[in-house]
Amino acid sequence: MSNTEDPPPKEDVESPATENPTPVETGTGFGGASITRRWRREDLLKRGSLALRGLALLFSLLAFIIMASNKHGDWKNFDKYEEYRYLLAIAILSTLYSGAQVLRQVHELSTGKQLLEKRTSAMVDFFGDQFVAYLLVSSASSAVPLTNRMREGTDNIFTDSSAAAISMGFFAFISLALSALISGYKLSTQSYI
Amino acid sequence: MSNTEDPPPKEDVESPATENPTPVETGTGFGGASITRRWRREDLLKRGSLALRGLALLFSLLAFIIMASNKHGDWKNFDKYEEYRYLLAIAILSTLYSGAQVLRQVHELSTGKQLLEKRTSAMVDFFGDQFVAYLLVSSASSAVPLTNRMREGTDNIFTDSSAAAISMGFFAFISLALSALISGYKLSTQSYI
Repeated sequence: MSNTEDPPPKEDVESPATENPTPVETGTGFGGASITRRWRREDLLKRGSLALRGLALLFSLLAFIIMASNKHGDWKNFDKYEEYRYLLAIAILSTLYSGAQVLRQVHELSTGKQLLEKRTSAMVDFFGDQFVAYLLVSSASSAVPLTNRMREGTDNIFTDSSAAAISMGFFAFISLALSALISGYKLSTQSYI
Repeated sequence: MSNTEDPPPKEDVESPATENPTPVETGTGFGGASITRRWRREDLLKRGSLALRGLALLFSLLAFIIMASNKHGDWKNFDKYEEYRYLLAIAILSTLYSGAQVLRQVHELSTGKQLLEKRTSAMVDFFGDQFVAYLLVSSASSAVPLTNRMREGTDNIFTDSSAAAISMGFFAFISLALSALISGYKLSTQSYI
């Protein structure tokens, strides 16, 4: 009957968010165009935050690997210095955190199902990103002066690897800090009184 | 008979919403109680963020004063060490930032006028708090290992003052990080599509 003709127009929009239109907006009196715009922006934000978390995962994994393999005997072992041990610990933590977030986001994008309730996940994102970003900037900052001082005396593979790991830590921090801003923005687009 | 005993239980309910039913809310489905609750919460948040910024101002001013007066001749001058100079610079910046924010908020609370548009000020708060918090945690973290190493050898007024300034820096960081969370929450309670 006429019921069979209804689906096609809906499919033409091709916005992935139309698959689960949140029932909250229907009564608020905003036009369809603004809602589509909002969905497109949310989709962009979702992909942006996934990309940033992916970068954070890559950089913290690199920091972890470079620092963990930074053992060249004698005084050139990373585990002789508390700053480097701190950096390694935080790199591991950040790898686990951003890995888990990337897995969750990829799972949500591919299946369309939310693992956590939407508001809970926005909160977790916002707090988690900020917290891990603080830890990353703290560990990278604490390792900089030691490396600077070593490099004044001598420049070898140990100091170079340390500098590389620190840089990766900073890059991971920048990715997560930007991701925290996006999470804050996402939190702000949810309407609840 | 038994009819005269019925009315009293109805009056005992004393629901406050029946006294002034505002005609505005009848269409939207929210009760007057929830709006009052929201106003009260916003007021609480405003005071909380003012208090946190006041604490940040106090702590960063203390960090600034303690570090700037930390000159005891010979190697015991703070300006011989880049970590301490960094901490001092960030303490000054954080003092200026939180001082300006406190002045603005006090002005807004006392006059009731907004210096900036509400959305702009929420954005400035959110980005500014986070940025200064990152700087504070970075500078305090970078100064910790140097102080630790000095205190292994000797414990004197110079290392003690440095440790005190670093602690003040961390306290200022915690205040601003909490304030950033409140700013994020404030941003989230504004509804715009």
